[in-house]
Amino acid sequence: MAGSPGRAWICFTQRLDTSTILKWLILEGYTVVAFLADVGQIEDFAEVEKKALALGAERMVIDNLQQEFVDELIFRAIQCNAIYEDRYLLGTSLARPVIARAQVRAAHKYNCKILSHGCTGKGVRFELAWKACDPSLTVIAPWRMPSFFNRFQGRQDLLKFASENNIPVSSTPKAPWSQDDNLAHCSYESGILEKPDLPAPKNVWTRTVDPLDAPDVPTKFSVTFREGIPVKLEVEGGKTVTGSLEIFKALNEIAGSNGVGRVDIVESRFIGLKSRGCYDSPALTVLRLAHVDIEGMTVDSKVKSIMAWIGNEWSQCLYNGMYFSPERELLENSIVFSQKQVHGKVDMMVYKGAAHVLARSAPESNLYSEEQASMDTLEGFSPEDASGFIAIQAIRLEKYGAAKIQQGEPLTRAA
Amino acid sequence: MAGSPGRAWICFTQRLDTSTILKWLILEGYTVVAFLADVGQIEDFAEVEKKALALGAERMVIDNLQQEFVDELIFRAIQCNAIYEDRYLLGTSLARPVIARAQVRAAHKYNCKILSHGCTGKGVRFELAWKACDPSLTVIAPWRMPSFFNRFQGRQDLLKFASENNIPVSSTPKAPWSQDDNLAHCSYESGILEKPDLPAPKNVWTRTVDPLDAPDVPTKFSVTFREGIPVKLEVEGGKTVTGSLEIFKALNEIAGSNGVGRVDIVESRFIGLKSRGCYDSPALTVLRLAHVDIEGMTVDSKVKSIMAWIGNEWSQCLYNGMYFSPERELLENSIVFSQKQVHGKVDMMVYKGAAHVLARSAPESNLYSEEQASMDTLEGFSPEDASGFIAIQAIRLEKYGAAKIQQGEPLTRAA
Amino acid sequence: MAGSPGRAWICFTQRLDTSTILKWLILEGYTVVAFLADVGQIEDFAEVEKKALALGAERMVIDNLQQEFVDELIFRAIQCNAIYEDRYLLGTSLARPVIARAQVRAAHKYNCKILSHGCTGKGVRFELAWKACDPSLTVIAPWRMPSFFNRFQGRQDLLKFASENNIPVSSTPKAPWSQDDNLAHCSYESGILEKPDLPAPKNVWTRTVDPLDAPDVPTKFSVTFREGIPVKLEVEGGKTVTGSLEIFKALNEIAGSNGVGRVDIVESRFIGLKSRGCYDSPALTVLRLAHVDIEGMTVDSKVKSIMAWIGNEWSQCLYNGMYFSPERELLENSIVFSQKQVHGKVDMMVYKGAAHVLARSAPESNLYSEEQASMDTLEGFSPEDASGFIAIQAIRLEKYGAAKIQQGEPLTRAA
Amino acid sequence: MAGSPGRAWICFTQRLDTSTILKWLILEGYTVVAFLADVGQIEDFAEVEKKALALGAERMVIDNLQQEFVDELIFRAIQCNAIYEDRYLLGTSLARPVIARAQVRAAHKYNCKILSHGCTGKGVRFELAWKACDPSLTVIAPWRMPSFFNRFQGRQDLLKFASENNIPVSSTPKAPWSQDDNLAHCSYESGILEKPDLPAPKNVWTRTVDPLDAPDVPTKFSVTFREGIPVKLEVEGGKTVTGSLEIFKALNEIAGSNGVGRVDIVESRFIGLKSRGCYDSPALTVLRLAHVDIEGMTVDSKVKSIMAWIGNEWSQCLYNGMYFSPERELLENSIVFSQKQVHGKVDMMVYKGAAHVLARSAPESNLYSEEQASMDTLEGFSPEDASGFIAIQAIRLEKYGAAKIQQGEPLTRAA
Repeated sequence: MAGSPGRAWICFTQRLDTSTILKWLILEGYTVVAFLADVGQIEDFAEVEKKALALGAERMVIDNLQQEFVDELIFRAIQCNAIYEDRYLLGTSLARPVIARAQVRAAHKYNCKILSHGCTGKGVRFELAWKACDPSLTVIAPWRMPSFFNRFQGRQDLLKFASENNIPVSSTPKAPWSQDDNLAHCSYESGILEKPDLPAPKNVWTRTVDPLDAPDVPTKFSVTFREGIPVKLEVEGGKTVTGSLEIFKALNEIAGSNGVGRVDIVESRFIGLKSRGCYDSPALTVLRLAHVDIEGMTVDSKVKSIMAWIGNEWSQCLYNGMYFSPERELLENSIVFSQKQVHGKVDMMVYKGAAHVLARSAPESNLYSEEQASMDTLEGFSPEDASGFIAIQAIRLEKYGAAKIQQGEPLTRAA
Repeated sequence: MAGSPGRAWICFTQRLDTSTILKWLILEGYTVVAFLADVGQIEDFAEVEKKALALGAERMVIDNLQQEFVDELIFRAIQCNAIYEDRYLLGTSLARPVIARAQVRAAHKYNCKILSHGCTGKGVRFELAWKACDPSLTVIAPWRMPSFFNRFQGRQDLLKFASENNIPVSSTPKAPWSQDDNLAHCSYESGILEKPDLPAPKNVWTRTVDPLDAPDVPTKFSVTFREGIPVKLEVEGGKTVTGSLEIFKALNEIAGSNGVGRVDIVESRFIGLKSRGCYDSPALTVLRLAHVDIEGMTVDSKVKSIMAWIGNEWSQCLYNGMYFSPERELLENSIVFSQKQVHGKVDMMVYKGAAHVLARSAPESNLYSEEQASMDTLEGFSPEDASGFIAIQAIRLEKYGAAKIQQGEPLTRAA
Repeated sequence: MAGSPGRAWICFTQRLDTSTILKWLILEGYTVVAFLADVGQIEDFAEVEKKALALGAERMVIDNLQQEFVDELIFRAIQCNAIYEDRYLLGTSLARPVIARAQVRAAHKYNCKILSHGCTGKGVRFELAWKACDPSLTVIAPWRMPSFFNRFQGRQDLLKFASENNIPVSSTPKAPWSQDDNLAHCSYESGILEKPDLPAPKNVWTRTVDPLDAPDVPTKFSVTFREGIPVKLEVEGGKTVTGSLEIFKALNEIAGSNGVGRVDIVESRFIGLKSRGCYDSPALTVLRLAHVDIEGMTVDSKVKSIMAWIGNEWSQCLYNGMYFSPERELLENSIVFSQKQVHGKVDMMVYKGAAHVLARSAPESNLYSEEQASMDTLEGFSPEDASGFIAIQAIRLEKYGAAKIQQGEPLTRAA
Repeated sequence: MAGSPGRAWICFTQRLDTSTILKWLILEGYTVVAFLADVGQIEDFAEVEKKALALGAERMVIDNLQQEFVDELIFRAIQCNAIYEDRYLLGTSLARPVIARAQVRAAHKYNCKILSHGCTGKGVRFELAWKACDPSLTVIAPWRMPSFFNRFQGRQDLLKFASENNIPVSSTPKAPWSQDDNLAHCSYESGILEKPDLPAPKNVWTRTVDPLDAPDVPTKFSVTFREGIPVKLEVEGGKTVTGSLEIFKALNEIAGSNGVGRVDIVESRFIGLKSRGCYDSPALTVLRLAHVDIEGMTVDSKVKSIMAWIGNEWSQCLYNGMYFSPERELLENSIVFSQKQVHGKVDMMVYKGAAHVLARSAPESNLYSEEQASMDTLEGFSPEDASGFIAIQAIRLEKYGAAKIQQGEPLTRAA
């Protein structure tokens, strides 16, 4: 390739594949800015920078996004009780939008018109976000370019290229699965985990201890919410934590050290495939449960039912990489509105892999009334009211029963 | 009242209130048939019969409904992953329809035109079911009749009536809460539990041991499903169980003795009030999780998403006492249809209050493919396909981003 | 009854039943304030006042609510394309909340603690609204009080009471159906209309001419929307109208005189019964169609799909008399948000009973692009992209087809 | 290309583009079987066959699919009141599955392993269906192959190729829009119709007369349904028609000649673009309305509400070309089940562009009851029951109102 094809930006980690792509781009003539988002993963950022510069990057940008990750994504997920296919708490999907947005900001700042990444299938969420944030940027996805993927058909090809180009290769043997770490969770998939009939090895999990190795004494704490947002954490016999990021980190520690937050599922990918994923999300798990609980005290039943649908749409939207979309904006407008009265405190316990709600209070809400709940006092309505309510609710049902009798299928039959 | 007003049927337990109603009906001149459904609760049925006859009932009918309870209600709930307000597994709601149906059958058999019960608010589900099953029956709900509730305004009035009428009163002091027991769960509510900011006392729970007192060694087992129905339970180092009722009882024992299945929530009642309920549902908890997991392997993603909505409608329908309704029939038609390929085995572990899925297999399904899931082999589609997919998915998003830029709110801003 | 039982307020019309109730309340000792909302119905308000005072009312309050009716209810319905059971445009349900709110305001102003009305079943929406707006008010619903309904068992009893109490009775024979008129529509039901197998008589309809008698020349006009609200009406060869109430009235005239807006349905009442209703809603019909059309140009497809669900919930909520509820507030928050970009103009024609959209434009929206829509120019995506899109969408479908072949039910069979 | 690359099958019409592709395939060495589905379009089938053979096709297969089109697709759409974005009756989407299935059957019969079509974007639905029906088939989509679309960049290139290869070109000038005709509708789009702010020309429409030119006398008729399927058509003063295809054709004639069934919309394509489509669907329009009406008499309200959601999912599924999918099978299972009691007759009138329901009867259903509907007779429930119903429904609303007062935003404020 003659002349410099331009300034490229790459999402860089220490992994062999992104190192290879970085070098390959330089060899193709690009001036390369390397970027890495700090979303709370365990990483030696100084080492990453050193490596990127050694490989020839013009600059290594490391952007700490932890605060906006918690405030804009993780706590929004808490507010809408986000969950995918009834079990997955969306840790990866939540991180993508903040990372992608910061990537575009960095591309703008360092005047790169080209974005590149080392993802195969997973690139979908990044690229959808980039196209929404700035459709004028060009994406180079080497693993989808024949000139690249035909050359690097397996790990051996990458190692050969590394050796020819002085790319340092970690002496630590690669784990037989891949993992992706951020504040919200760590995910584990592919490799030996692709056999869903085999349990994940004990040493897979990094953010949670094995429930069998967890402390013999439970840890109790309470979480206080304002407008559906955790604002205070009080640990029994211990400290009080405020500040969104601080609370989230403290709960990752507390729940993780008690073995809480593991999920092992076969899920439906956006592209139509099924895959197995193992995730440990200690703080997310605990906070989702606490939030569901405090909503029980503070949110009207019909509003809850509408918001369950909205939360499901939001989860699906995030999972499919559609954060930067008009529907996400619409859904979040509802989510925030629905939380205006969600103030209260939830008392919890974590112990050997399980999180338990013990009690809760919401003094500012009038929805729960001890007197009304009592069966002995029927203030708001008289006993006769129940008769009227039943009589009218039964109108439809009586017609149904009558039709069944007429059809010779009385409802009194056992199946 | 002159002359016999007819033959009445009453839902009878040993409790003071139903004893009082039974006697009161007899004094009013009714000939009374007493009925009690056996849905797996802990009860001395011989003692109940003895007491009813002593009080003057013409007959005590005890009807064992455990098998139809599991087959028609509990396992349908499992098939649709039934849950109410994200946490309650509907134990009480599931029992009501089988009981109500058996009650109507008994009324027919013993020629009673009048049904009576001792419920206050809870009577809603029974009465809706009765009206659907046979609208020609008359309901006497004493707690909603002024002539009754004005006379018996508190426990003292009941005790006085008991003493005057030789109604035996249990010497065991009444627990300061009420409980309702069946195979699916035991519920605890009212009394001291009406303070949601106080944890439930340790001795409330009857179907689960305290997680802190559970065994130090986990119990592993696997559940095999055919068409979404559990058909085999294999306990590690132990027995193999078949038969729906037997499997369900064995899992109640296994999960319960490991402290699995407790829920403590504030929920929205059908009639618009909030109330606090504590439930322990060991087998239901474990089977719901296992079923959600095996569906991950065997149900198409779009079908899953439709069925999540259907399952939610079914749960709401049951909670509201609308089992005998055309909508329930419609929803179940879908539920059964959706399970035609749900065959497979889930390996699980229960330990100190938590249930864990360890692995699963579904050899008859083609939805999960180890090869396709692998990132290294992209059989079904080429890497270029992903580019096309992304390009088309992005069409909407690019328009959204462009409009935002035009409106001066670029998506790259942090909130 | 000794002494005055207090100040009562009554919803008063000239009808025999409300006259009777007014008099009856006075005879019971109440001081009565009569109230009538002006929501655009055809009524001789001066005559109503004269009559109320003659009957002994302390005061007759007539409150013109037309502007808030259009702005807060009717145009919100337009914004969410409100419709009930696919056909009914909710005319009655839309009027109830503004009327009920004004009634409570009047009760407060004139110091009445008691509200009364002459409705039988229809009172549900009023009473639910009153209870939300001020639960401290007492409701007297004579038609549900045995002391009243046992005394007035038929029209003869009312006539007798009228004659005894100098209540003037209209000499016009009562139509053999009932009707309820407001700006949004006129409804016709009960009486001879309760035979759904007989067409409604030609003289039932009051807001629309018979399509067979409509002009032989169509009327063309255009409606301009800002944020989903009609802000300008331009009639071909005629005037330009602005102002929400003025536009709505003008369209009632234009559409009504062309026979547009009739609906004749059997609908499901909130209380579980089916009933037949005939409604003519000329302006609502035309504006709903125009709004649906302009949303086609200006609202993202996924947002449209979410809003269809939200609009349906809003419609159900209004139909059930739940306007003053937290869910309505939540839904409207979404509705208003969704309309932020709904600006544009729709050209229409009404002719002999039908409304037609002819064309539309929305220059401020980038969602429709003539170039992109063209099949000859595929700008945003290349032809190869479609292949990738199809390949990935097909992943699920191929598995489905393969499973069917394996099960011996290939998809190529005709049913 | 050396040697025959195999046997190909092509979807053939007389249009220039498919003629070109047919010839191009032959020149590329393929043995070509041409196929054309008869789904009720206006076409000179003999001429098509003659032309295909003249161009070198081995065989021209013409398959009459009208009966299965009506029975399996059109009447299923009627049963679920299918509609897309509130207006489009899905005519094109309904035809695609029967055609695609017949195409695969023909490919099997004539031993072709390759399928080809002349579609650009529209090929999505065909290809998704083919992949589901037989993923082993290879698709050649010339308009997405660079070797083809770079060669034929405009109509001039096609005309040149035609002239060089003796491909007859119609002397009729091509209309400045494209159209697609089948029993269900005729669609008109692209070309001059891509300007949505210009009305469609008067001569666009082929299946409906202009309402202004329609007869001055209305046509009245009744449609009888069994299980939601039209089984009899009785025309006032005229014939009685039975048989699904015959009824549908007769209604196309009756409604079309009265100008009923035109829709002009801007819709959201599956791929994310907006486009303008004009459709005339006379019989579909009338039958959908009739079916919605008869469901009002025969379907429980809650079932209606669930089925509205199901019908919407089915419509979306069909629109997106997902007919051969597990979700469609699931949805149809519900649709058919929901129709078990949908028996009755609807009386209608069509007149100058509008269809009107006049009356209906459903003697086999007990849901509508003239007595119960009457306000004068309150059989099933007493007037007091309404009080109880209201009191309990109001519990939530009172709490809402009380909270608003506490927050200083009483509900009595106008907005």
